[in-house]
Amino acid sequence: MNPQLKIFLVSKSPRRRQLLEEMGICFEVLHTNINETYPKGLSPVEIAEYLSQLKLTSVNFSEYLENAIFISCDTIVVLNEIIMGKPKTEEEAVFMLQQLSGKTHQVISGLTVATAKEMTTQHCITEVSFKNLLKKEIEYYVKHYQPYDKAGAYGIQEWIGLIGATSIKGCFYNVMGLPTALLWKMLDNFKINNVN
Amino acid sequence: MNPQLKIFLVSKSPRRRQLLEEMGICFEVLHTNINETYPKGLSPVEIAEYLSQLKLTSVNFSEYLENAIFISCDTIVVLNEIIMGKPKTEEEAVFMLQQLSGKTHQVISGLTVATAKEMTTQHCITEVSFKNLLKKEIEYYVKHYQPYDKAGAYGIQEWIGLIGATSIKGCFYNVMGLPTALLWKMLDNFKINNVN
Repeated sequence: MNPQLKIFLVSKSPRRRQLLEEMGICFEVLHTNINETYPKGLSPVEIAEYLSQLKLTSVNFSEYLENAIFISCDTIVVLNEIIMGKPKTEEEAVFMLQQLSGKTHQVISGLTVATAKEMTTQHCITEVSFKNLLKKEIEYYVKHYQPYDKAGAYGIQEWIGLIGATSIKGCFYNVMGLPTALLWKMLDNFKINNVN
Repeated sequence: MNPQLKIFLVSKSPRRRQLLEEMGICFEVLHTNINETYPKGLSPVEIAEYLSQLKLTSVNFSEYLENAIFISCDTIVVLNEIIMGKPKTEEEAVFMLQQLSGKTHQVISGLTVATAKEMTTQHCITEVSFKNLLKKEIEYYVKHYQPYDKAGAYGIQEWIGLIGATSIKGCFYNVMGLPTALLWKMLDNFKINNVN
């Protein structure tokens, strides 16, 4: 690893932090508070990419050393071309899971890696299929796991993912919130991985 | 959950135990020491199913109450129709990962659920694709993670899975060693799930 480089994860998500740690990468966390709005007319992929760039450009680069690398990611859940946000109430969480039940949806992440000089954005799509979830299963999950910080009202790594996600197609860790294999590939350009 | 039922996991694997716990199921572990050999001429699916039944039938059912349910699972890794076992040495682990590098392989579990009266076996297949793994990535992983208890010499939930598994098709938890959604469905017949 190049000791002169310093990596910053621009994210509030504990899951992204955990995954980046498990990738063996040393980093610091930068918090941002952006308003997650986007221009009309964008496709789901464009929205995820736009929001990941928006998070990253909220950082005041000039505060940091020139040899800093910034990572940001935005993950959205899409069912039949409609984007599902984070549920605000128990009823909304139950309703979202009822919509996902018995269907296949897409989880799309926009991933941005930048230095003071250059910025690259890519995306990752994973399809997730849920079995027909019983109402009592949905209610049990929402009550015990309180998925209010999760787009689509579920965490694939939680109980509902274990018993209900019958199949996925693509990167699993993308569904958790960070497309780790894609990030590894993008970071390769910067020679910062920990096996050098 | 039916309080009169008692569930036993016939397994030595800490990963299976962890996944069954995360499914919210109360159980006890039974250890077995079977010789994992199988008749010639079986297909990979038949081998996984055969070995899961072999583990289960090693239990002396008469020792247990009539209302006991037994679960056993065997997971194999198959590349081009050839079954990959657990590596015995560092060299063997490196060699196995070099074989999986840049290719798609299958992870097949046989899953058996039984009572004193009936036994059901099903299987689950997941395809896993690895990027072209660098020699230094393989050596780093084998040195730091010692994957000698893992068929195919890797754990999808470990570093090499995060950075190297670009895509999977099927149940993720099957690759970890227990097809949780399939098990949930099979257990449904016994009315033992924790949301009743």
